[in-house]
Amino acid sequence: MITSPRNRRIAEAARLHRRPARNLAGRTLIEGRALLAEAMAAGVPIDVIFTLDPSSAEAAEATGRGIEVLGVTDEVLRRLSGTRNPAGSVAIVAVPDPAPPVTQDTVVLSGVGDPGNAGTVVRSAAAFGFQVIATAGTVDLWAPKVLRAGAGAHFRTPIASLPNGATGGAAVAALESAGLATVALVVEGGEPIERLSPGPVALMVGDEAHGLDPAVVAACGRLATIVMSAGTESLNAAAAASIAMWERFRSRR
Amino acid sequence: MITSPRNRRIAEAARLHRRPARNLAGRTLIEGRALLAEAMAAGVPIDVIFTLDPSSAEAAEATGRGIEVLGVTDEVLRRLSGTRNPAGSVAIVAVPDPAPPVTQDTVVLSGVGDPGNAGTVVRSAAAFGFQVIATAGTVDLWAPKVLRAGAGAHFRTPIASLPNGATGGAAVAALESAGLATVALVVEGGEPIERLSPGPVALMVGDEAHGLDPAVVAACGRLATIVMSAGTESLNAAAAASIAMWERFRSRR
Repeated sequence: MITSPRNRRIAEAARLHRRPARNLAGRTLIEGRALLAEAMAAGVPIDVIFTLDPSSAEAAEATGRGIEVLGVTDEVLRRLSGTRNPAGSVAIVAVPDPAPPVTQDTVVLSGVGDPGNAGTVVRSAAAFGFQVIATAGTVDLWAPKVLRAGAGAHFRTPIASLPNGATGGAAVAALESAGLATVALVVEGGEPIERLSPGPVALMVGDEAHGLDPAVVAACGRLATIVMSAGTESLNAAAAASIAMWERFRSRR
Repeated sequence: MITSPRNRRIAEAARLHRRPARNLAGRTLIEGRALLAEAMAAGVPIDVIFTLDPSSAEAAEATGRGIEVLGVTDEVLRRLSGTRNPAGSVAIVAVPDPAPPVTQDTVVLSGVGDPGNAGTVVRSAAAFGFQVIATAGTVDLWAPKVLRAGAGAHFRTPIASLPNGATGGAAVAALESAGLATVALVVEGGEPIERLSPGPVALMVGDEAHGLDPAVVAACGRLATIVMSAGTESLNAAAAASIAMWERFRSRR
């Protein structure tokens, strides 16, 4: 039982809340039984599970698979968790190696800074058969908060990377090279989203407050808009991305 | 210039972060220039604006309208704000009196506890012409965090209440009495959402983790489902509500 939040293993694990430490280690943190079960089902390498209850059935199953399980106190778990009321366990898991995009419907996050929004987009992507790509300026999709909002979808849908972390117009060019028709999702002035022609697209979704970088919009093959009721309306970035993905999914069913 | 976070006016205002204080005062807090502009445009009574910059054009406009404007320090603003980096001003505004539902498309939040999700639903409701109702168990729609996520939509779309805060099966009965066809949004087993017949509906949206209360589902006239790709997928509650509202809006355009 680890009782000190200053324990070396705990301090090392807690560092994974910061992106540079995650990149260096190729590891991240997942919290709670549901995410752990998804990671195990997906065969993601798990280094260690820190848990309040090392005698649980889940702990026994993990031990049986050769995963290290360490009991910790409430205080230690709070140090590892990003939440005030931790969900019982935190595990260190491997972040998959970056993969190049495949030719399928894709949602591209371009400057989405909110972890909850990014995780919601990953979750909707899994629901509607979309690949996910984050370009520079977007929150790290493997941040613990994004994984929490993703509710396990990270382990069920492809998450790809662009060569050399291409951004702006270069990201659009890299997507086109991968055989994806780029479509900028814009608040107004695009084709109605339900009228986009079929075939795999890369839907570019921008920052909540400022939308897509004008350089990205200019480089995209087409613009699409979710037409709303009259007035000065706009949508939350994750809601807009989810609606656009639903619309593509619905129209090809 | 108010320089002490312990100033009586500041302490009283900060209490409005708690629901009982909001209910007692019939007042809430809005933060930042964008929400303030929406509230002013909607003619919402504004008691006072606490601002870092009492010499701004916005402050002069507010003063011209007879609104009290008080300069505050960074430290005082942080006490008033729910965020680490406050957006420059916080205002005390009136919460509109509860109104009975009107017969139009409606989204009913039934046990949605996350302020970001609730605000995103209000925002999508304004975009797609839906009225919003929160039943017991849902976060207060007039909480400052919900207003922030709503991005001004609270001031542009009807927010109604049920008699005596009806909940569960009684809420469903009250909606039907108001002429709304109740539809429970469920993860599986409902009619595909795009095939629901036209006419005003009350879409019931449940809690993120547990979905709708079974008593609510049983009392609803119909069940509808957003059909997803195969697998154990689910959607964020706000994403699901947004997609369902879009689908109703699209099909009646």
